[in-house]
Amino acid sequence: MPSIAYFGPRGTFSEQAALVHAAPTDSLVPMDTVPRALAAVRAGDADLACVPVENSVEGAVSATMDALAVDDPLVAVAEVVLPVRFSVLVRPGVSAEDVRTVASHPHALAQVQGWLARHLPAATQTAATSTAGAAVGVGDGTWDAAITAPVAANHYPLDVLATDVADVDGAMTRFLVLRRPGALPERTGFDRTSLVMIASAERTGVLAELLTELALRGINLSRIESRPQKGRLGRYRFYLDFDGHVAEQRVGDALAALHRRCEHVRFLGSYPKAERASSASAAALGNSDQDYTQANRWVTAVRNGETG
Amino acid sequence: MPSIAYFGPRGTFSEQAALVHAAPTDSLVPMDTVPRALAAVRAGDADLACVPVENSVEGAVSATMDALAVDDPLVAVAEVVLPVRFSVLVRPGVSAEDVRTVASHPHALAQVQGWLARHLPAATQTAATSTAGAAVGVGDGTWDAAITAPVAANHYPLDVLATDVADVDGAMTRFLVLRRPGALPERTGFDRTSLVMIASAERTGVLAELLTELALRGINLSRIESRPQKGRLGRYRFYLDFDGHVAEQRVGDALAALHRRCEHVRFLGSYPKAERASSASAAALGNSDQDYTQANRWVTAVRNGETG
Repeated sequence: MPSIAYFGPRGTFSEQAALVHAAPTDSLVPMDTVPRALAAVRAGDADLACVPVENSVEGAVSATMDALAVDDPLVAVAEVVLPVRFSVLVRPGVSAEDVRTVASHPHALAQVQGWLARHLPAATQTAATSTAGAAVGVGDGTWDAAITAPVAANHYPLDVLATDVADVDGAMTRFLVLRRPGALPERTGFDRTSLVMIASAERTGVLAELLTELALRGINLSRIESRPQKGRLGRYRFYLDFDGHVAEQRVGDALAALHRRCEHVRFLGSYPKAERASSASAAALGNSDQDYTQANRWVTAVRNGETG
Repeated sequence: MPSIAYFGPRGTFSEQAALVHAAPTDSLVPMDTVPRALAAVRAGDADLACVPVENSVEGAVSATMDALAVDDPLVAVAEVVLPVRFSVLVRPGVSAEDVRTVASHPHALAQVQGWLARHLPAATQTAATSTAGAAVGVGDGTWDAAITAPVAANHYPLDVLATDVADVDGAMTRFLVLRRPGALPERTGFDRTSLVMIASAERTGVLAELLTELALRGINLSRIESRPQKGRLGRYRFYLDFDGHVAEQRVGDALAALHRRCEHVRFLGSYPKAERASSASAAALGNSDQDYTQANRWVTAVRNGETG
């Protein structure tokens, strides 16, 4: 019965994401902050952590990324992608006309301004530390309505005034499920690999060279972000997500190249992609495992004087 | 007397950044949200907008970046970098022992947990929509203490319980000052150029190629971030900051190359760097303006049959 730490209280988008990954018997443990959820796994107090890594509605992604790059390594075993769609919760019997105050995390409020203008134009907006914190405040009478993750309705004795609330269609938020290093998830053919690297020089063009190491092996980059290293002006960490599993020869070969050329590379996991979209064909590019095996065999033969 | 729109209310980090840029006679205009500050400039209701673009303490950077990539173009004329250091404001006469509740934007609270544990361990923490919103709430008696930008002390009749509050030294937050397109800021030799681009293909390796266009011209990348385009799975916008001014031949030449190779490039400005650090020497790399002029003159001569 693994335990999964997430950014709480109960009813946040982080819990919603954890539920997508969890088995029915898993226990979900709310933590005060994202770094504390990671710390719980590092300390062995939880088996897994589910934390936001992209387009977070609540909780700062920059804090997550900084926390993944330092301290004991953690590796992702899964990703979860959720649509950014909110529910509006009120105390039982309260109707839209009764709502004088509406609360949520400031980032959630910012994403429903159009809906609020149309449906609750007279309501005063106030901030909560999380979307779920707003639901707690509605329950205790502090506010009349909360903008929350859909899962919050399962935890708090509140009515759902509206669901699927979003000003912009198609917005998504992304989470990683992380654990201490160990056996990797199986290669599925629909995998993503994440890492953080620090180039070994401030030389102009070094990032172009490092990305070329991936491109030459037919590896498709799906995300990149630079973050300055605190206290080291002009030195950056680069966070990369790309298609493929480290068990693939081309991915292992690319990681070895980055390791040779970087001051530091931290592997953040190879895990199935949420969308199950196929990676670009490796075979077509001379980058299949078989291509690597045959090519290495040929070089060995050349070295042994067996062929030209 | 230009007007500068910023993410309000009065006393936010955005106002603090705007003040760094503003002349004494400029009028500063608080707006409800970052996108609204940009919209005010697009509509001509304000001359400039000062908005967070990196490591924001309050206001979502992702919303800023999305808003800069669409609608009428805006260009940056300056950047402002501020240390992430907070003040703690209380009503006059209130001491640390009297503080039962402390409020701020959730991201600001997250960055002072260590300080709060040491100095206000018994205080209940609550969220505000901005650091300045917390100061307003302290003024009206809702909370006892607010974690704010230093500038908030100028606006609200509150006492400063502590200043330079930060758990981690060296954290910075970055803002751009934007206006409608027009004459560019003068080239200073300490310039940065920002743009957003959409590659014209989902082809593997396209980003490595685009960054190589910069590297080949000796242009040093200072920031990169990919953001998915809403509703277009697998298509990304890339936000780049790099050293140099578009008035430089090598930078203009690189922008032309990106324009040739991209589906879309939007210029977001050439402006003096906040840190006034010199760009990597262009001359040493055969990339000075003089190198370009001489090389172009030589190609013209070759085409005219005047030399070999």
